[in-house]
Amino acid sequence: MQKLFQYNWQVREDWFNWCETVPEADILKERVGGVGGVLHTLFHIVDVEYSWILNMKGEVVPDVPPFKEYASLHKVREFSREYHHKVVRPFVYSWKDEMEKKTLLDTDSSGQTSIYKQGEIMRHILAHEIHHIGQLSIWAREIGKKPISANFIDRGLS
Amino acid sequence: MQKLFQYNWQVREDWFNWCETVPEADILKERVGGVGGVLHTLFHIVDVEYSWILNMKGEVVPDVPPFKEYASLHKVREFSREYHHKVVRPFVYSWKDEMEKKTLLDTDSSGQTSIYKQGEIMRHILAHEIHHIGQLSIWAREIGKKPISANFIDRGLS
Repeated sequence: MQKLFQYNWQVREDWFNWCETVPEADILKERVGGVGGVLHTLFHIVDVEYSWILNMKGEVVPDVPPFKEYASLHKVREFSREYHHKVVRPFVYSWKDEMEKKTLLDTDSSGQTSIYKQGEIMRHILAHEIHHIGQLSIWAREIGKKPISANFIDRGLS
Repeated sequence: MQKLFQYNWQVREDWFNWCETVPEADILKERVGGVGGVLHTLFHIVDVEYSWILNMKGEVVPDVPPFKEYASLHKVREFSREYHHKVVRPFVYSWKDEMEKKTLLDTDSSGQTSIYKQGEIMRHILAHEIHHIGQLSIWAREIGKKPISANFIDRGLS
């Protein structure tokens, strides 16, 4: 489990660096599909990851802040770093197989509640980030730039 | 490990069904980014998955067939099913933690050889499919259709 999280964090950092090489207008531009833009996608990835982890820790999950308050590369990067060190990394590195079946209650934005297993949520977070990063790779080509490699191999994660 | 493979297989099947609802020209159309089209992407996902698994089984990996020989939904679906039952599924369901560190030799198309661990390759296959499916979700919106949900939750995989 941890290795796929490490992969996601490494790829995300690569994309933050990639964003530095692109005019800000290109990463802020509204695009077709996904959550609608490069930086907004990175913001959404960070938000979903820490929100689920706060939920698994039994802590209060704050409302998603509006993206417009974070609409700069610097702010999204800080947002990612802050929760990574405070919440995400400690939880992922403390993960043990016996946490797999522990249940948690989720209430979605429409007020509907569901019960999930923690293992299921961990895989949901993993797939969520990889999926959205795939979308960035299309938009990178639209911008005319080579996307970050999605390879898991050759990243020192063996 | 198995659950993320099951997720990928379920999502892939959903996309094959989605393709049935779209004019064939839309799934064959050359697009910007990735391997360049909806059906070509599904073909590439199947090819990469079974090729790595044949390699891990120590079997000869055939050359990638040209996509133009498989450029219909029916053929790509059959291609996926055939290798799924013959090669992929048996290997994934026989996976045990002790297979993680076993090494394999890979020779890429330029003739360069690399040594990988099997656990690394399994995660590479998983991330590879999820990443490319993220690309399909953008193209679905370009076509004007709702993409398949990428959620891991609510798929009965807990």
